[in-house]
Amino acid sequence: MKEFSVTILGSSAAIATPERNLTSHLVNHCDRLFLIDCGEGTQFRLRELKVRTRKIKHIFISHLHGDHFYGLIGLISTMHLLRRTDELTIYGPPLLKEIIQLQLEASATTLYYPLNFKETNTLTEEVIYDDGKLTVSSFPLKHRIPTTGFFFKEKEMPKHINKNAADRYGVPIVYYNSLRRGSDFINDDGERVPNHLLTSPSEPSRSYAFCSDTIYDEDIIESIRGCDLLYHESTFGGDMHEAAMEKMHSTNIQAATIALKAQVKKLMLGHFSARYDDLIPLLEEARNTFSETIIAEEGVTFYL
Amino acid sequence: MKEFSVTILGSSAAIATPERNLTSHLVNHCDRLFLIDCGEGTQFRLRELKVRTRKIKHIFISHLHGDHFYGLIGLISTMHLLRRTDELTIYGPPLLKEIIQLQLEASATTLYYPLNFKETNTLTEEVIYDDGKLTVSSFPLKHRIPTTGFFFKEKEMPKHINKNAADRYGVPIVYYNSLRRGSDFINDDGERVPNHLLTSPSEPSRSYAFCSDTIYDEDIIESIRGCDLLYHESTFGGDMHEAAMEKMHSTNIQAATIALKAQVKKLMLGHFSARYDDLIPLLEEARNTFSETIIAEEGVTFYL
Repeated sequence: MKEFSVTILGSSAAIATPERNLTSHLVNHCDRLFLIDCGEGTQFRLRELKVRTRKIKHIFISHLHGDHFYGLIGLISTMHLLRRTDELTIYGPPLLKEIIQLQLEASATTLYYPLNFKETNTLTEEVIYDDGKLTVSSFPLKHRIPTTGFFFKEKEMPKHINKNAADRYGVPIVYYNSLRRGSDFINDDGERVPNHLLTSPSEPSRSYAFCSDTIYDEDIIESIRGCDLLYHESTFGGDMHEAAMEKMHSTNIQAATIALKAQVKKLMLGHFSARYDDLIPLLEEARNTFSETIIAEEGVTFYL
Repeated sequence: MKEFSVTILGSSAAIATPERNLTSHLVNHCDRLFLIDCGEGTQFRLRELKVRTRKIKHIFISHLHGDHFYGLIGLISTMHLLRRTDELTIYGPPLLKEIIQLQLEASATTLYYPLNFKETNTLTEEVIYDDGKLTVSSFPLKHRIPTTGFFFKEKEMPKHINKNAADRYGVPIVYYNSLRRGSDFINDDGERVPNHLLTSPSEPSRSYAFCSDTIYDEDIIESIRGCDLLYHESTFGGDMHEAAMEKMHSTNIQAATIALKAQVKKLMLGHFSARYDDLIPLLEEARNTFSETIIAEEGVTFYL
């Protein structure tokens, strides 16, 4: 199966700690790299993990709180200093383009590579990326400022032709594409050969949902339903329900409740407040609600 | 003697390396902390060194290349999240205020503390800070964009009264302040008692000069003459004289030549290109021109 993975570059909320860096996730789909959020220091994490930043062509920024994007301008600059020539596209809320461009102007930098900005719609869900194998959608999250989550979804892949069976039933090669799409075959005698006798199923289409930062919000459920891996912020433990409401963040239990209601396969907790040294109690508490819960561990790659 | 020290938070040019961080120096004068430049990740260096950022009241930014200030907005934000209430003043070139304010607006942040900006004059030298014990001047450096160096100078301190001698010569206490300023004492009989019999010298006034980034420029010599410690950028080794000219940086030999001509007591080299793993050859080469040369080592505190 082709790689589809998420590497955690940072799992801390607002203030980084010695053990936890600011939010950034690196998605690898079939050797195409995508960055989600880019807290200060993200370029150093990428260097530590020996990620070839040249292969990152698309960066998605959820919102303009500093812990999610203050590392972006530094990464953009370093890519320039490394003589990148490949296009880079940044997806994010209004004002992001202005912030980046003002800093490039102040340093009198004309980038060696084309830099594009696509403004995300923070009010309605929309597909913002499609490369034929993968789509990325943004969808609104409820936070103190305009914020979106991102949903990475593989497209349904064509079925595999069973070459021996196709030969046995005398299927001409020109019919293969319609078999891949699921059609039955009708031979010259008018006999119908069911598709399942001629093909084997394609790999299941996998999906990854990124939800940070957000208050507990059941409105997101339809956007993430059934995904293979849901990353949902979990700034606080269950006892800090009030603080989470006030700051428009979520608790671990709220994240688990969303995971349960959205019938996702696995939940990953992250964006932990600096008050928590030990994350195991947060994990165990969440597992009481949704057993398939894991922690976003720094530097770890999770395979879908 | 009261503390006057410089701690190196980063010594790398444009691109950080695993061993070297981006430019930032922490100056401690009599327990008052000053930051000079603030490359990405500076707030993490301060945390590692357990610096109480509350005590930093003044930050000086030399110019708006990213490796010298992309960490500033993150530091400002973290100070806010840590509930700082003390005023903070930022000194830097035009546009810095706009860049910071735009990012604070985008995150809908109203800081808990007063944040002031003072625009540096990148064309002429001027005193920008004076607390009675220390002055800081900015002076123009020649680089690709408007840039200043900074000169930290202790004020001349009053002489110490030799109490025994003053009693012996019958000096009334009301004359002590004029003795401290260097006056002789004339007693009731009209006899002159020379000042040096009544006082001992004050501590020598110390000074620190910060020069990064700059092409080789003898125009700075008068601004830094005789200082105790000169930090001068040394992006390249002596063989890369042409590259240094072209990029408006300096070589180690050029830094040493400035140190020699300005008759400074000690030279510190820094802002090293990522191409250099081993800095010792750069140091040795510079010492052929100016023997009192040292390397800006990460995390090390140098006492004046």
